[in-house]
Amino acid sequence: MINIGIIGVGRIGRVHGENISRYIRNARIKTIADPYLNDEQIIWATRLGIQNWTKCYKDILTDNEIHAVLICSPTDTHCEIAIDCIHAGKHIFCEKPIDKNIIKIYNVICELEKYNVKFQVGFNRRFDHNFKAIKQAIQSHKIGQPHILRITSRDPYPPTLNYSKICGGLFVDMTIHDFDMTRYLLDAEVMEVFAVGNTLIEPTIAELDDVDTAIITMKMSDGTLVVIDNSRQAVYGYDQRVEVFGSKGQASIANDTKTSLVISDNQGIHTEKPLNFFLERYTRSYAEEIKHFINAILSNKPVLVNAYDGLMAVLIGVASIKSLKENRPVKLSEIEKLENGGKTNGDEIYVNNYLRLSKRSLRIQGHS
Amino acid sequence: MINIGIIGVGRIGRVHGENISRYIRNARIKTIADPYLNDEQIIWATRLGIQNWTKCYKDILTDNEIHAVLICSPTDTHCEIAIDCIHAGKHIFCEKPIDKNIIKIYNVICELEKYNVKFQVGFNRRFDHNFKAIKQAIQSHKIGQPHILRITSRDPYPPTLNYSKICGGLFVDMTIHDFDMTRYLLDAEVMEVFAVGNTLIEPTIAELDDVDTAIITMKMSDGTLVVIDNSRQAVYGYDQRVEVFGSKGQASIANDTKTSLVISDNQGIHTEKPLNFFLERYTRSYAEEIKHFINAILSNKPVLVNAYDGLMAVLIGVASIKSLKENRPVKLSEIEKLENGGKTNGDEIYVNNYLRLSKRSLRIQGHS
Amino acid sequence: MINIGIIGVGRIGRVHGENISRYIRNARIKTIADPYLNDEQIIWATRLGIQNWTKCYKDILTDNEIHAVLICSPTDTHCEIAIDCIHAGKHIFCEKPIDKNIIKIYNVICELEKYNVKFQVGFNRRFDHNFKAIKQAIQSHKIGQPHILRITSRDPYPPTLNYSKICGGLFVDMTIHDFDMTRYLLDAEVMEVFAVGNTLIEPTIAELDDVDTAIITMKMSDGTLVVIDNSRQAVYGYDQRVEVFGSKGQASIANDTKTSLVISDNQGIHTEKPLNFFLERYTRSYAEEIKHFINAILSNKPVLVNAYDGLMAVLIGVASIKSLKENRPVKLSEIEKLENGGKTNGDEIYVNNYLRLSKRSLRIQGHS
Amino acid sequence: MINIGIIGVGRIGRVHGENISRYIRNARIKTIADPYLNDEQIIWATRLGIQNWTKCYKDILTDNEIHAVLICSPTDTHCEIAIDCIHAGKHIFCEKPIDKNIIKIYNVICELEKYNVKFQVGFNRRFDHNFKAIKQAIQSHKIGQPHILRITSRDPYPPTLNYSKICGGLFVDMTIHDFDMTRYLLDAEVMEVFAVGNTLIEPTIAELDDVDTAIITMKMSDGTLVVIDNSRQAVYGYDQRVEVFGSKGQASIANDTKTSLVISDNQGIHTEKPLNFFLERYTRSYAEEIKHFINAILSNKPVLVNAYDGLMAVLIGVASIKSLKENRPVKLSEIEKLENGGKTNGDEIYVNNYLRLSKRSLRIQGHS
Repeated sequence: MINIGIIGVGRIGRVHGENISRYIRNARIKTIADPYLNDEQIIWATRLGIQNWTKCYKDILTDNEIHAVLICSPTDTHCEIAIDCIHAGKHIFCEKPIDKNIIKIYNVICELEKYNVKFQVGFNRRFDHNFKAIKQAIQSHKIGQPHILRITSRDPYPPTLNYSKICGGLFVDMTIHDFDMTRYLLDAEVMEVFAVGNTLIEPTIAELDDVDTAIITMKMSDGTLVVIDNSRQAVYGYDQRVEVFGSKGQASIANDTKTSLVISDNQGIHTEKPLNFFLERYTRSYAEEIKHFINAILSNKPVLVNAYDGLMAVLIGVASIKSLKENRPVKLSEIEKLENGGKTNGDEIYVNNYLRLSKRSLRIQGHS
Repeated sequence: MINIGIIGVGRIGRVHGENISRYIRNARIKTIADPYLNDEQIIWATRLGIQNWTKCYKDILTDNEIHAVLICSPTDTHCEIAIDCIHAGKHIFCEKPIDKNIIKIYNVICELEKYNVKFQVGFNRRFDHNFKAIKQAIQSHKIGQPHILRITSRDPYPPTLNYSKICGGLFVDMTIHDFDMTRYLLDAEVMEVFAVGNTLIEPTIAELDDVDTAIITMKMSDGTLVVIDNSRQAVYGYDQRVEVFGSKGQASIANDTKTSLVISDNQGIHTEKPLNFFLERYTRSYAEEIKHFINAILSNKPVLVNAYDGLMAVLIGVASIKSLKENRPVKLSEIEKLENGGKTNGDEIYVNNYLRLSKRSLRIQGHS
Repeated sequence: MINIGIIGVGRIGRVHGENISRYIRNARIKTIADPYLNDEQIIWATRLGIQNWTKCYKDILTDNEIHAVLICSPTDTHCEIAIDCIHAGKHIFCEKPIDKNIIKIYNVICELEKYNVKFQVGFNRRFDHNFKAIKQAIQSHKIGQPHILRITSRDPYPPTLNYSKICGGLFVDMTIHDFDMTRYLLDAEVMEVFAVGNTLIEPTIAELDDVDTAIITMKMSDGTLVVIDNSRQAVYGYDQRVEVFGSKGQASIANDTKTSLVISDNQGIHTEKPLNFFLERYTRSYAEEIKHFINAILSNKPVLVNAYDGLMAVLIGVASIKSLKENRPVKLSEIEKLENGGKTNGDEIYVNNYLRLSKRSLRIQGHS
Repeated sequence: MINIGIIGVGRIGRVHGENISRYIRNARIKTIADPYLNDEQIIWATRLGIQNWTKCYKDILTDNEIHAVLICSPTDTHCEIAIDCIHAGKHIFCEKPIDKNIIKIYNVICELEKYNVKFQVGFNRRFDHNFKAIKQAIQSHKIGQPHILRITSRDPYPPTLNYSKICGGLFVDMTIHDFDMTRYLLDAEVMEVFAVGNTLIEPTIAELDDVDTAIITMKMSDGTLVVIDNSRQAVYGYDQRVEVFGSKGQASIANDTKTSLVISDNQGIHTEKPLNFFLERYTRSYAEEIKHFINAILSNKPVLVNAYDGLMAVLIGVASIKSLKENRPVKLSEIEKLENGGKTNGDEIYVNNYLRLSKRSLRIQGHS
């Protein structure tokens, strides 16, 4: 039985809490921590049989009975909390993105290399039934060598302006899932990225130096060409599709709908819109990713999506921002100087030198 | 080069005429005959390069250069014209149904047995791309032994009252295609039929002792169970589907649409209605059936759909009418007395004894 | 908080137990009863936090803290247990069918009329997302007045021979769901039924006087024509489809699949088989039906599927068996004599006189 | 009645010939010209009732009875023949591309401005039922303002090496259709293009400095973002799809198949591959484009796809080649110097200055 502490019980923290309570037999939530803990959250916890709550996450770190921590706090607190957790010897499940700042993520990875704890990043789509199915199709060579990967990822409605201001922009907030999916599906690294974008939905976005519509083209280390298209607003619902075209065929996944109802009338044939909200669409994947995390701890196996994966997705996002700004293809190897200093140690300072990091990441992936 | 005469140049006669002119290289229309020949028809003929027209179909029969005749006149004239054609040694393509009266069809078959001419009935659906594909799937054992055959056949709008009065009713006018398709797809004979029906679309139909909505269940000689559902009005378009369920799987065909356009909006996902009119839906099948007829003549091979097939479809229709009226399953072998007398010769009087006719039909099918 | 006792903790009893534990906040299982209670079941109960178990269901009836009972024992024990529960004032959720014997069901209904308890029958499909969607489409008049209802219901593989011997045959065991769905979707009563069937999958079924393939045609009180087709073995998976054709259009529901994966290769375009097992296909409906039952108790509202519905489905099954045996359409009003005697009281003896029962059922449906 | 001369009776010339003969009532082919005219071609012509043939296309130009010419000769002869036709006052239908050289096309346009003849380019896809439907959906504002256009265009198998050597490369030979479709669907001009490509199918292609797999991203004058993906070999068939995503929804068109057959077996659900060959897939569009051409002549209306359209598609192709070679986005306005000199007249020398040309093109489009 794994005892868990949840740090941050906003929307996603509670999703994980309910999933553990319903679906995971060999784990239980011992404590929740949130600096803004309110009555509603306590009632929620009580109903789930959670008996301890605190405003200070460090209470969780000093509890020797707690084996693992879910970091569900705001993004800019992830790295500090993560490093504290590492030092306390707790296994970590950290929501995405680890951070918007590469150096801060890098520092987490450096600490991870010294301690024997699991670190899983919340790229839940890797655990979704459809995405798993297409991954399996590629792995089993049903489509041969991949040539073209197409990801369509469009939200049903744009975020609030406040959220837009802090989220890091389209590429780091939204496309980050697609960047991770690209690396996961192809089992290859991004070499170069070219992004075009526009502000077609919400003019105020442009003032934030962000875009709401984008197409990102990427060249992969195995020669595959990748294209991602994003929009902040698909009025017909949450559009989440992937298509992998290869030497022996093509695999694709389509949107899920609530029911299979078809209405035929004198206007045409009508079916349902896709599921409209990410928590509805990806419900099961949230339970699956936590199951995977618990199993990795219990069986002492590598997690499917580790800190290096978390770093790479942000790195591609940063390269995309640079590409959009400079209107040119950007190689990942270009990002050689880390703008905001940060702790560095000799050659290892260049997180951007991803081939070197890639080798190191083997240690991260392989360590127990 | 086969010279053809067309008897009756209404809508369907002209469809055949245009198809021969466009698609068939080894046939040409020499003469058209129609007792009500008008200017428009003559202009039509001239444009197609047809040089002879007459009001009397017998002019075609006496023309030694004409090898084959298409009988496209009103149904109640088919048999008389057919027998004249047989006596004149012309190959015959006859529109469906051969007649609504079984004895009259029987008499045609008796004449056919004495003369060496082809006789093809216009069950065009056997030549449709979708129906051919499902036939091929069954024949190639992709679904194993058939267990259940389901045919959905619904018209886009009901016929005029005048047409309803003379067409012989739903079963002989419309379901007849489905009866033929059943025999064709399963390569088996109908043993027993049970029909339920109702007047749900057009109340005046009830006054004609007819129905506009029906479900017909049939037991086949090979044990397969069959269900046909019909409606005179599917507001979403011409609904023409078949599903064969068997020991190793299922084959089905769906409706054709004009384009593959899909519109996704905030109301749902929308596609086109099926093609809305039988001449639009079955366009190519009309050309294919005439090609087949010409090839059968040129290569002296049996036609795919002969006079016996034409008889059987009407016979099942008659049994369905009886079943509906008496609200009980009716065996085809029951229909032993031919109501309206007609020419008979000993044992052969009983056309209903289909097993005997079936053996005879081998001769019809096999003769050149 | 509703306290529940489960009588019978075989497969379906445990499905309900897990669902209550996971998804239903205002109910808890207090006690389970099973005459053959074993260690595995006790471990299962303990894990779910169930603290009481017994071999004698009467222990549940005498527990005043228990408000409601789920009857999940073998079919032939349902009625006796149900009547005991009624007398003990417990609300009842009873698995389908209530019984194979109409008189026994009738007797339960008679008791229900005297006591103020809920009685819900386990026709879970009424709570399935697809079936609910098509019901909603009909109710909201999207297709106008229904003309034809088509239900396809085919199992992925035949039951064991032992199960076949006791299950009451195809119509009472399997088609019963479709009979209930017909009444539910159309909100009308079956007037007459005609069944054809064959033994095409498993020859030994014929020795049991049963069939494994069937087509059932029904006339409804509102004029709609219904056809159900059943098979005990669809090799491509569990085939559960419905199509309602009406004056303004058509609504249909298709099979659910595990993922939306499409593989295109040089052989064709390939998608997944339907979900292959009823517990997988109907997972959510089992949780929904229990939620509905609990809510009906708490809000003192009629249940969606009551004892009269349970009776009617069996009655149609019995009529279908008669129709198959006698090869003729059977009116439900025909079944006037109850073969095996049973308790009767004057006019009410005729359960088959469904119009009278229908009125009475209003009381059942309406009573709290 | 329009009299037509066909110059070049290879595959595509004969396709047009047959279509005119079958489907177009107000046009007839008077003469065919081909320097390599052979017996087979003469037999073909005779069968179609074409009575004149010649090895010298100038015989057609001097025939005063001929109103219009179809230029179906090898690409590098198009411009010279076209200019001769213009001077002879013949209306012109010219196969795509007009030429691979921009200057040569420009010179044709200069001549067109002086003479009153129609000039239609053979971008047949504009006349395809699916592409017309999506164009109509956009025009009727069903999807609002377009944001993203995605075109998938993949051939079923790569061309021969010999063809690859002379075809001008992927962008000018194959993507040219997609470039034209982009301009047509969006009714906007391409501002900038970025191409990535690879040689994943046929290594010898790389030696020709060409690619067989590519993704082209484009920014349009109206802000829409466009992505085209191409492959020379889709083993599952000819893949021709378009998706336009906009402010109010999305419109998409899928591949056509030969039949609607669906096979369900224990391996899954299987449908047909797309139509496998461009003449099969686009059959009807070839007839439609010629009909349009004839109607434009008869009614003296602008053609749907004129010389300017022909020029622009090649121009985008040239920009794509440059982008691929230089690995950077290329503005269409960049292509300011015409490499190979050519006839120039002052400011007009810069064909690349497409805004200026665009205005001129109005004259071309509008003139009769």
